Amino acid sequence: MLRGLTGAGLGRIESDERLIELAAAHGFQAVDLDAAAFVERHGVEKARELLAGSGVVIGSIGLPVEWRTTEEAFLEGLKKLASSAAAAAALGCKSCCTYILPSTDLKAAHFMALATSRLRTCAQILGAYGIRLGLEFVGPHHLRTRWANPFIWTLAETLDWIEAIGESNVGLLFDSYHWYTNGLTVAEIESLRADQIVHVHINDAPNVPVSEALDNGRIYPGEGVIDLVGFLQALQKIGYKGAVSQEILTAEAPNQSPEELILRSKAGFDKVFNAAGL
Amino acid sequence: MLRGLTGAGLGRIESDERLIELAAAHGFQAVDLDAAAFVERHGVEKARELLAGSGVVIGSIGLPVEWRTTEEAFLEGLKKLASSAAAAAALGCKSCCTYILPSTDLKAAHFMALATSRLRTCAQILGAYGIRLGLEFVGPHHLRTRWANPFIWTLAETLDWIEAIGESNVGLLFDSYHWYTNGLTVAEIESLRADQIVHVHINDAPNVPVSEALDNGRIYPGEGVIDLVGFLQALQKIGYKGAVSQEILTAEAPNQSPEELILRSKAGFDKVFNAAGL
Amino acid sequence: MLRGLTGAGLGRIESDERLIELAAAHGFQAVDLDAAAFVERHGVEKARELLAGSGVVIGSIGLPVEWRTTEEAFLEGLKKLASSAAAAAALGCKSCCTYILPSTDLKAAHFMALATSRLRTCAQILGAYGIRLGLEFVGPHHLRTRWANPFIWTLAETLDWIEAIGESNVGLLFDSYHWYTNGLTVAEIESLRADQIVHVHINDAPNVPVSEALDNGRIYPGEGVIDLVGFLQALQKIGYKGAVSQEILTAEAPNQSPEELILRSKAGFDKVFNAAGL
Amino acid sequence: MLRGLTGAGLGRIESDERLIELAAAHGFQAVDLDAAAFVERHGVEKARELLAGSGVVIGSIGLPVEWRTTEEAFLEGLKKLASSAAAAAALGCKSCCTYILPSTDLKAAHFMALATSRLRTCAQILGAYGIRLGLEFVGPHHLRTRWANPFIWTLAETLDWIEAIGESNVGLLFDSYHWYTNGLTVAEIESLRADQIVHVHINDAPNVPVSEALDNGRIYPGEGVIDLVGFLQALQKIGYKGAVSQEILTAEAPNQSPEELILRSKAGFDKVFNAAGL
Repeated sequence: MLRGLTGAGLGRIESDERLIELAAAHGFQAVDLDAAAFVERHGVEKARELLAGSGVVIGSIGLPVEWRTTEEAFLEGLKKLASSAAAAAALGCKSCCTYILPSTDLKAAHFMALATSRLRTCAQILGAYGIRLGLEFVGPHHLRTRWANPFIWTLAETLDWIEAIGESNVGLLFDSYHWYTNGLTVAEIESLRADQIVHVHINDAPNVPVSEALDNGRIYPGEGVIDLVGFLQALQKIGYKGAVSQEILTAEAPNQSPEELILRSKAGFDKVFNAAGL
Repeated sequence: MLRGLTGAGLGRIESDERLIELAAAHGFQAVDLDAAAFVERHGVEKARELLAGSGVVIGSIGLPVEWRTTEEAFLEGLKKLASSAAAAAALGCKSCCTYILPSTDLKAAHFMALATSRLRTCAQILGAYGIRLGLEFVGPHHLRTRWANPFIWTLAETLDWIEAIGESNVGLLFDSYHWYTNGLTVAEIESLRADQIVHVHINDAPNVPVSEALDNGRIYPGEGVIDLVGFLQALQKIGYKGAVSQEILTAEAPNQSPEELILRSKAGFDKVFNAAGL
Repeated sequence: MLRGLTGAGLGRIESDERLIELAAAHGFQAVDLDAAAFVERHGVEKARELLAGSGVVIGSIGLPVEWRTTEEAFLEGLKKLASSAAAAAALGCKSCCTYILPSTDLKAAHFMALATSRLRTCAQILGAYGIRLGLEFVGPHHLRTRWANPFIWTLAETLDWIEAIGESNVGLLFDSYHWYTNGLTVAEIESLRADQIVHVHINDAPNVPVSEALDNGRIYPGEGVIDLVGFLQALQKIGYKGAVSQEILTAEAPNQSPEELILRSKAGFDKVFNAAGL
Repeated sequence: MLRGLTGAGLGRIESDERLIELAAAHGFQAVDLDAAAFVERHGVEKARELLAGSGVVIGSIGLPVEWRTTEEAFLEGLKKLASSAAAAAALGCKSCCTYILPSTDLKAAHFMALATSRLRTCAQILGAYGIRLGLEFVGPHHLRTRWANPFIWTLAETLDWIEAIGESNVGLLFDSYHWYTNGLTVAEIESLRADQIVHVHINDAPNVPVSEALDNGRIYPGEGVIDLVGFLQALQKIGYKGAVSQEILTAEAPNQSPEELILRSKAGFDKVFNAAGL
């Protein structure tokens, strides 16, 4: 498994280039960023060199298509997906992720039908470039009633949805925070095949009742109550080899500097990875 | 278009064989029945002769697979689908239909995902035998809240679902009763292509507010308030050439004999088909 | 059916704008052109006005993706497909076509597998924008052995391939020249459903043995030996309502002016359409 | 990995029940057999007990559908696939395999299109029961020209075909004999993901030029020239955990008894598995 970072949790980091630098300097092996923008700024060759020179790979790009609202927004975003996929592929990145809000103001069944078609099209395009699409189920309880109608938030529902989408390159973005807020156990991870997991996020939760853990109330790995050692060991056991990226969403921006925050992140990763024997 | 009958609305008709006889004797050209059971009783050759001798074709078979409940029930039913499809195909029938309940006790989005996978598999099997799958949206208002969660009941939702299922042999079972209870107009029919319609049902509604028209409160064509002339003309205009089958669901069995009921049905068909210039 | 034109057969026509002008001036109702380039030049609004002002619609765009050679070429072209589809959709065009060479230097079965995946992805993207993909089987005998291995060229093979691609928005580009060089009859057209046909080309053939009719030896409708009256009547009978576009491929550029050539085309269309009672 | 047996190579073994007995008695952990027939003979419960009591699982069933010839044969076979899949699933078997002949008397591209549709339908049905479909590429050179037209026989072609089929439960049946006759190396196995492999066959080849190794000239593991140690180690390295089943196809039936042949097989497995450190 690769130790990975997203920008979330590192404060006001000025650029992806700086993110790469910091990651490399502190033993991280993967960063999640916008490959198309990165290629746009540097060209493919230079972009490759920057990554290779830092010893850092791209863990995942985000899906640049708005599939949750109107057909117009979806079709507008779809125009750029092939180029984004090409950029990611050119940089050796093979995953693209998006999250699933657990409730919706749309009629749930109808939205499920629309979203199935839309994500299938996205998966088809990504697949042509050898890229997989990871769907992140989102567990925090407050979001399940944040919008009018319940959508889906469990692992089992998400696996069934992946079946319905029906493209072989669709899998899970598995986030420890959503594993925890869904009340899942190590056994549920061990029941998966590694190839069902496209990408992993690692975050910790404060010591509050599970039902009160807020989506933007995440804390650094090793600082909270989630069994991240069991989480990592189970992923290891099933053979997951990809990136495990921190994504600390918080209500307010942290008041430490990026340099301080990455040290804190590194300490957290060291703690849980070492305890897991990784 | 072919004038068609289902058993529903003809009282205690003793057998499909009798249904065919009555249909033929009163100018109907299609009947909806269980092709597999019919072939089972007669063998393919004899079954073909019976139909050909009567000048009656099979309008549609019903989907013999329970896709709305458990995975176990689905898989059990799936075992016989290929044989049912083969039987229908052997008798020249090219459509198979199922209805969509507008509400569900299951979580709506999750059920939509499951049902999408299940109906896709059914469509794949049917498609191998050249048979199309028609999905019937169900409009009566009382059924929308009959179970805990709203599912889908509109034409637009059903078309979006057909997209999500993603097999080219899936289309609509279009029932005048659901067209009416959805408050749809002739223009909505005219906006369809004929090939989107797998099968048609024709029924009339009593003179009660639309929102109070019950699913099992249907009456014979021409005896109620639905604009069946506009309905038929619009289907004709877009080029629909298949069966238009009566399916009179009622709370209590009619107390007339099958012979009386078919005369009543014939009178209704004559009235609306003639008025539509068909 | 709409009388349509492509640039092929009109000599050195300076622009699509001129093509539209000429088409409109001579009673043609559709032109095949590159919608994306047209929108690029004028913007969507102006492009719409130009078409509306001329009373001409776009019959079809060409598939802007090279699916017949390398994976690299395919992926490069795929980048622009969504934008091309969006441009076409914005101008009301719902079809996109590509032709199938009847032989290939690649291993035929392997190429079929690759092409199936590639065209499926194209169809998925086009479908998101409501656009259908028409596949043109190519009949001239000399092309069947032009490259090392036979690929496919018959109607039946193409329909089977459409099944294999498995997207509901894929159909035929039906060209009278390939109908003729395949030795097909009116009955074969009548056995199709209108919705299986995405677009139609109309061309005539010189009075040479069918097996010697060259792909680039086409002549103007009504000037040759193809039963274009039967062709058009059969399309009419099955309910085809789209564009029927001339595409006169010739070994040498015609030496008449575009103005003369369009008069010649118009005369040909008048002759065969009138004879067909259209 | 599980040491597995098929009936091929064990002489005149009287029944699957005897195969299970022999397998269990000699340390084999998997047998390939017809699950539906086995369930037919014993009922599900008894069949499960027989397997559990022997400590043997079913490695794979064979695809009971003829997809290589006529549409009629295909549709006839398809009728029983769901029941076969249900039987396999009931016994805990999750794979079903079929082989690809490397040449065909049909037109290769057309056959590829037909076979793509057919195997997709099979995969859909199997997938509903949680079963994967393994496609076995067949390498022996003499079969490449055995029928009129080359079809496919390489690993790369087969992977591309799996893409074209487009169902996520389709993968490879990987046979050491075809790996060898294709001239593939350990690196090619290591470039696969374990989840791409549905089932494995292990066989050895006589010391003749690769191009002369006959499909029915196979010999027992460890008795020939194939690098089965490298083969097994590479499978182990990528994480393959399923059955590795011997399938000794020979021109003439072996003249040893099943009891002698299974000892010979066991000796071969011991030799290569031990040498591979398994």
